[in-house]
Amino acid sequence: MSAHVQDVFMLFGDSITQGAWEPGYTGIGQRLSHVYARRLDVLNRGYSGYNTEWGLPVLEQCLAKKDAVNVPKIRVLTIWFGANDACIKPSPQHVPLEKFKDNLRRMVDLVHSPSSPFYSPDTRVILITAPPVNTIKRKADLESRDPPVELDRLFDVTKAYAEAVLEIAREKDVGVVDAWAPMWEGSGRDERELSKYLGDGLHLTEAGYKIVYDSLIQVIAEKYPDVHFERLGFAFTPWKDIDWESPAGSLDLKKP
Amino acid sequence: MSAHVQDVFMLFGDSITQGAWEPGYTGIGQRLSHVYARRLDVLNRGYSGYNTEWGLPVLEQCLAKKDAVNVPKIRVLTIWFGANDACIKPSPQHVPLEKFKDNLRRMVDLVHSPSSPFYSPDTRVILITAPPVNTIKRKADLESRDPPVELDRLFDVTKAYAEAVLEIAREKDVGVVDAWAPMWEGSGRDERELSKYLGDGLHLTEAGYKIVYDSLIQVIAEKYPDVHFERLGFAFTPWKDIDWESPAGSLDLKKP
Repeated sequence: MSAHVQDVFMLFGDSITQGAWEPGYTGIGQRLSHVYARRLDVLNRGYSGYNTEWGLPVLEQCLAKKDAVNVPKIRVLTIWFGANDACIKPSPQHVPLEKFKDNLRRMVDLVHSPSSPFYSPDTRVILITAPPVNTIKRKADLESRDPPVELDRLFDVTKAYAEAVLEIAREKDVGVVDAWAPMWEGSGRDERELSKYLGDGLHLTEAGYKIVYDSLIQVIAEKYPDVHFERLGFAFTPWKDIDWESPAGSLDLKKP
Repeated sequence: MSAHVQDVFMLFGDSITQGAWEPGYTGIGQRLSHVYARRLDVLNRGYSGYNTEWGLPVLEQCLAKKDAVNVPKIRVLTIWFGANDACIKPSPQHVPLEKFKDNLRRMVDLVHSPSSPFYSPDTRVILITAPPVNTIKRKADLESRDPPVELDRLFDVTKAYAEAVLEIAREKDVGVVDAWAPMWEGSGRDERELSKYLGDGLHLTEAGYKIVYDSLIQVIAEKYPDVHFERLGFAFTPWKDIDWESPAGSLDLKKP
């Protein structure tokens, strides 16, 4: 069985999180796995198609109670929803905006409320907004299916859900990464130009993930420097620091 | 704290394992993280510069005792050493061939021997051989350093360590991936042509990792089909199988 030798960097969200290690390009999962190697285990808790309504009971099960033994601390928890909640009716993924905001509050409270069984005041929570949606691409994608599907997301609706994430982050005083504004600005506020960040109108390209990664590391550096990868030591010592003549003592786990 | 919702795929080894999520190309870590998403947590237990002598006490600490609670099972454990053990004297990384073989035996026994405190008969162990070394590239790399360093690895010595891994895998009846032969054959048995698999003479390129990934998945499919990613269900249900009207019951963790 696997021992607890490293604490955890948990990425919680929908398909944009689940797909963050997709081969063929460099996503945010791969980048974080690389820089946090030997420091934190970067765990994929992304669930394609999920909204906050379905994500909330899943998050409760991904958290261990505060008195659990043998379990790693979650040093960083990113919560990245909105792309599916912002689906319009009659999509079963639709979650009303106020309900979406309340679900985000409840997710943060699971970790940060002293009355929560999962209370973990040291866990650094970072919300991430949905990216813009390229409805031109998305419409073409859905219309090409057999049978064709009607457009399920609108540009301004997704924007409102992204803004709601910023609002909840301010309200709860947690970190936030705005994935919406820099992609919109970087596209010259032209929906057609969003393709460089969103391959199918919805999911991120390498350039899209890079924007989010850079912003995430900046938020960590500024707001939560204790969990910046450069501030976390290796769980096991670099090989040049091993006592080569008598290695045993220098190979003990540095307790996370 | 992080709950145990998925079992573990542990990659244990040296820098070739540690670097398997390196950005800019698709390594074996990224590929495994992707296909095992929502199934197993793929953990990086790679330690740059380590040999089996230093790795053995680290492995003991990465394993939990068989009666530990709350800890995930290791469903697959890859053990990938040899590239550093095969360094020649006076390198501090050098481990004599017989000692290397004995260390590999002891690593397998930690998991598979009934008398081990870490006994886990269901853990699927797969040894991976070192790749060939391109001594032309490696020599040039070392000579370009300040101060210059003498060549620390020889082609035939690394080959002997790779063959030793095949031998121990047969002896212990565990899975094995030969990273040596297909790269050597794929280079037309010409050391200069190894560059397509080994960027600096020692560490793998995307093409090198792809050979190892394909062979690893084939070994799993043939010898350990129970841990093939296609045979493992999702920890949490696909969104289209959620009961949209009354989701709670359909969102329970499928116990790993």
